[in-house]
Amino acid sequence: MFDLEAMDGRARAGNLRTPHGTVATPAFMPVATKAVVKTLTPEEVWETGARALICNSFHLHLRPGAGLVRRMGGLHQLMGWGGTVFTDSGGFQLIRSGFDMKLRDSGIKYRNGLTGAVEELTPEGAVRLQWELGSDVAMALDDCPRYGTGREGVAQSCRRTIDWARRAMDARSALEDGPGGPLFFGIVQGGLDEELRKSCADALVSLNMDGYGIGGLSIGEPKPEMQRALRWSVEALPLSKPRYLMGVGSAAELLGSIAEGADLFDSAFPTRNARHGTIMTSGGNYSLSRADNAGIAGPLEEGCPCPTCRRFTRGYLHHLCIEKDMLGMRLASVHNLFFVEQLVSEAREAIVRRRFASFCEEFLAGMPGADSGSEEE
Amino acid sequence: MFDLEAMDGRARAGNLRTPHGTVATPAFMPVATKAVVKTLTPEEVWETGARALICNSFHLHLRPGAGLVRRMGGLHQLMGWGGTVFTDSGGFQLIRSGFDMKLRDSGIKYRNGLTGAVEELTPEGAVRLQWELGSDVAMALDDCPRYGTGREGVAQSCRRTIDWARRAMDARSALEDGPGGPLFFGIVQGGLDEELRKSCADALVSLNMDGYGIGGLSIGEPKPEMQRALRWSVEALPLSKPRYLMGVGSAAELLGSIAEGADLFDSAFPTRNARHGTIMTSGGNYSLSRADNAGIAGPLEEGCPCPTCRRFTRGYLHHLCIEKDMLGMRLASVHNLFFVEQLVSEAREAIVRRRFASFCEEFLAGMPGADSGSEEE
Repeated sequence: MFDLEAMDGRARAGNLRTPHGTVATPAFMPVATKAVVKTLTPEEVWETGARALICNSFHLHLRPGAGLVRRMGGLHQLMGWGGTVFTDSGGFQLIRSGFDMKLRDSGIKYRNGLTGAVEELTPEGAVRLQWELGSDVAMALDDCPRYGTGREGVAQSCRRTIDWARRAMDARSALEDGPGGPLFFGIVQGGLDEELRKSCADALVSLNMDGYGIGGLSIGEPKPEMQRALRWSVEALPLSKPRYLMGVGSAAELLGSIAEGADLFDSAFPTRNARHGTIMTSGGNYSLSRADNAGIAGPLEEGCPCPTCRRFTRGYLHHLCIEKDMLGMRLASVHNLFFVEQLVSEAREAIVRRRFASFCEEFLAGMPGADSGSEEE
Repeated sequence: MFDLEAMDGRARAGNLRTPHGTVATPAFMPVATKAVVKTLTPEEVWETGARALICNSFHLHLRPGAGLVRRMGGLHQLMGWGGTVFTDSGGFQLIRSGFDMKLRDSGIKYRNGLTGAVEELTPEGAVRLQWELGSDVAMALDDCPRYGTGREGVAQSCRRTIDWARRAMDARSALEDGPGGPLFFGIVQGGLDEELRKSCADALVSLNMDGYGIGGLSIGEPKPEMQRALRWSVEALPLSKPRYLMGVGSAAELLGSIAEGADLFDSAFPTRNARHGTIMTSGGNYSLSRADNAGIAGPLEEGCPCPTCRRFTRGYLHHLCIEKDMLGMRLASVHNLFFVEQLVSEAREAIVRRRFASFCEEFLAGMPGADSGSEEE
């Protein structure tokens, strides 16, 4: 399911085998919340180097509905994506995105804005939903406290997250009709508290899940605090299981988190910023709308081998950005995703060659300041 | 420059040789007002079968400016389009699109909304502009009266259009430094008046231009009136020159106008409607957002060989339309353009085989009602 190919310090290179192919880790997953990486075809996403996407099962439950996705042959068939599909449970979105919701021990009660009905997302329901969608890697429903929640509140979220993971594992056993089903990951919570992070991870590890998400980070906390909470979480997780740091997608944060032993990442940052004209490069980000990009005959980044830089000039993309044409948003999305996928792939190479620390040093030396990105599209 | 390959009734099949390739006519040109066919790459446009685009020199003058386009290597280089580029002068847009403008015999005075400056688009300036952009086929500045203008107003527009064409031809002679420059078309005006249409065409023909646009149609007039005005215009034009009916792009109008002897067409109709979820098929148009498209595993149109229908289901495109994702707009644009390009190409084939009338009859029998489309994106 997951094998560790190499380690360099805490950084790891591995391979995650899923029902739709093997994902070489560290890996960055483009966000396809509603079964589409915004503006892009699956071929274009594949060309960036991505081999796994993450969809949101809760959003897809609201529309078009899991039953319809199933009738269309599942998420892969629906989207035309031959690679791996992760699905998130949607707990994070429900709790944090201003839905009219109530957290209960039984699950998350919310009003379905499309039908007006009050529904409840339960741990068992979230498992069934992701099974029905045809996910390769499903995430347990978790309770993600907001940044700034007090210790007692975070502790309660942990208890709930652990209880929900246990119920989800039971539901999973009841559903499974043989090998070859999706992998199932729990999510470590615990805010910025060492003891809570470790006890939450310990409890989930005792459930022997297929892998572990690290949640509740990159939601507003200072970077050093995030780094510490990530380290505490990872320290309590077994070497043999993949670790998925949720919601991280800036270059500096990716390298910092790979250094701590995280294997999988997702973020809407590269694509959302592309649509707003922010271009990611190894020399830092820049805004495509800036007037000094006008008339530049070179590519978005000198030497970049991405499909956008191979075919279009920065001057033309600046023009498209100023005219707000979607073609510019597409081409910038391809460039940014390619940049992140290439970064993660080079990081992997460096880990295998036991030169990850110097790779990071060289890379970050060219990068003025850091940027952050999180949350779904 | 233009050779007539076959005629069937008044319908013609021909070949227009331009500095960037030969365009087989009848031909439909996708609209790339601001040097982009909205949402699409040049490769995607090429795959629809299109071999010529039309840009708007006035819009490109406003932004990014002809000097910049020239420094970037001209329109073809800027866009990455290897086919033919027509450019419109922008007179139509200035007069009809609510710019703060004044029509004078010298030209069209307007306020440049980006700089605040009062500028004048003259016949000579429009020629220079299109030369500078690197156009393959440039259009003379014309004065296009609104639908409903009285006879005296239309007559004045004709006089001005003819005078401007003469001045443009003089300016062109002054610019030309040898063979291989762009072709230069005049535009026949005259509203819905037989005498004015014919006298305007006669006057332009005496200037021996490379081809003739037929303007001032598809701007709100009833279809039979348009058909008549088109016929009067065409009757006064020589067989040996290409005729470009401006602003026509619905299936029924294209066939009706090809039957009258028009060779070239442009319209934002297929792409704009695609972005709003209207799908063109040989059975008529339908709205992709309609709920009965949900879950359909077949393509947008059964048997359609376009890149969209080969790869994506109608159910998925419906989902993208409901979620307002740009990917859906792109894929629908490709389908609609492919549909129109295929229609025009099949019409050409039918003309060559002298069975155009029965082709039209068969095609229109499957098509409930007609639709109209005009104006730039």
